[in-house]
Amino acid sequence: MSNPEACAPPPRTESGGSALTVRVYYEDTDAAGVVYYANYLRYCERARTEWLRTLGYSQQALLENHAIAFVVRSIEAQFLAPARLDDTLEIMTTVLRLGGASLSFSQRIVRNHSPIFTAQVGIACVDQRSGRPIPIPSGLKTRIRTTLQEATP
Amino acid sequence: MSNPEACAPPPRTESGGSALTVRVYYEDTDAAGVVYYANYLRYCERARTEWLRTLGYSQQALLENHAIAFVVRSIEAQFLAPARLDDTLEIMTTVLRLGGASLSFSQRIVRNHSPIFTAQVGIACVDQRSGRPIPIPSGLKTRIRTTLQEATP
Amino acid sequence: MSNPEACAPPPRTESGGSALTVRVYYEDTDAAGVVYYANYLRYCERARTEWLRTLGYSQQALLENHAIAFVVRSIEAQFLAPARLDDTLEIMTTVLRLGGASLSFSQRIVRNHSPIFTAQVGIACVDQRSGRPIPIPSGLKTRIRTTLQEATP
Amino acid sequence: MSNPEACAPPPRTESGGSALTVRVYYEDTDAAGVVYYANYLRYCERARTEWLRTLGYSQQALLENHAIAFVVRSIEAQFLAPARLDDTLEIMTTVLRLGGASLSFSQRIVRNHSPIFTAQVGIACVDQRSGRPIPIPSGLKTRIRTTLQEATP
Repeated sequence: MSNPEACAPPPRTESGGSALTVRVYYEDTDAAGVVYYANYLRYCERARTEWLRTLGYSQQALLENHAIAFVVRSIEAQFLAPARLDDTLEIMTTVLRLGGASLSFSQRIVRNHSPIFTAQVGIACVDQRSGRPIPIPSGLKTRIRTTLQEATP
Repeated sequence: MSNPEACAPPPRTESGGSALTVRVYYEDTDAAGVVYYANYLRYCERARTEWLRTLGYSQQALLENHAIAFVVRSIEAQFLAPARLDDTLEIMTTVLRLGGASLSFSQRIVRNHSPIFTAQVGIACVDQRSGRPIPIPSGLKTRIRTTLQEATP
Repeated sequence: MSNPEACAPPPRTESGGSALTVRVYYEDTDAAGVVYYANYLRYCERARTEWLRTLGYSQQALLENHAIAFVVRSIEAQFLAPARLDDTLEIMTTVLRLGGASLSFSQRIVRNHSPIFTAQVGIACVDQRSGRPIPIPSGLKTRIRTTLQEATP
Repeated sequence: MSNPEACAPPPRTESGGSALTVRVYYEDTDAAGVVYYANYLRYCERARTEWLRTLGYSQQALLENHAIAFVVRSIEAQFLAPARLDDTLEIMTTVLRLGGASLSFSQRIVRNHSPIFTAQVGIACVDQRSGRPIPIPSGLKTRIRTTLQEATP
């Protein structure tokens, strides 16, 4: 009756990263006829959430059970070409760096095999109640390290 | 490498309608810890777009090639229970009525087999340049009638 | 240096209601060249928040200090004409009904003196932690009753 | 009855820049209790639109009458501290660089006199129909140069 595969975490890529497919709907576009620029950051956040899910962790469980949230500290992004209504986009997500209470990602949005958006995103792991940095849960850190090792030739 | 099935139109249901699965992300929630109320209307619009796609039509092609847009004229909605971060929701969409230049839908959002949102949505087919009503393309109208007939016992 | 008046609660109208002025930005529009339909509900929510502020209450204080949230239970809306990029819209908000733990509003969006959107919105007062209905704070209920009495000729 | 000053362009600052005040509403927040990260980019775009208005130009007129759009090419942003429901934020916007068909801004979001977000934003002036770069309208370029000169001690 429906398509639950749509909500399964996307498969892992050879680089140890993750790829998510999204469809552009009217809600994402603006009067200039293209995806409104801030919405690429929403796609990227969905992709990071799904990357987390491939490692066995959910944002909701981390938030509700451990008051852990991953917050964006910095972003450097390039908008190379626009996406439009009805496009299918792939969001590629790879970990660049893993620290004690932070990590950074390289994310790339691809449309018809051409990159249209790239970003480096710096993330901090914080206690959602205080906003203070806290160590990334050790189980999660181990999983991330494993994917990084699997990726290195 | 990615999950293109996520963007295939969802299968048709026995009622001639359509069901779309969506995941709730951080972008959909608000500080009260639930999906922000207007965002259910975004889910519904995605579901109507996918319903259209199951009939072989895309919003982007209709807009770009024929300047045809489907605009919402009315909505009656009930918010029965909240959805939360990380939920998987099913959006069921059925046609209630088909007119010459308008149609109405019944849409229902289900979470863990329980309805959390229902709406009746009145839609007009318009020329996007003038905003004036125009007849629903005959090919599309035929397809809709066919699904309605298939649904009737 | 800036315009703090922009954030003062809007003046009360003779009907005991409230009016808020909003500007349409790119973020509100879509590829059909008009305000995306769900965004009218965002404007309405801003107007209800400002109406609350005219009565001396803030959503954030209610949420943080008392775990009180006002949640939308129902909406009946008519989309009469589109708003476009750069429009200035007025959102008029009036209380229709006041109950023990609920109330309903009539809201109207006006563009160049013409109504473009109308809605009746049913709201429940809930404990944000449990989602269960709780009585509207008595001080606030008194203020609302006063504005309703002031409005009646 | 309403507060039209809310929609007047904000006054110019001594640096030749511009400051816009915005209020944080439920729509801007997420389940972590803070403004969702991508929404700072929406505030920044509103501020750039208002900066343009102080110079006598409107995005809608440029788009509709001249098919001119300003598109974001790059952004480097730092998220220093979170904003929350009901906050009043000031968005400061200054031109860093003015080219033939592009310009860049420095934007800063301030909450209670503390910067919570900073960004450098690279913008291109394009023909909205083709997406190709076109020269910034000369009248507008002159106005921008004038504000830059007024700002220099």
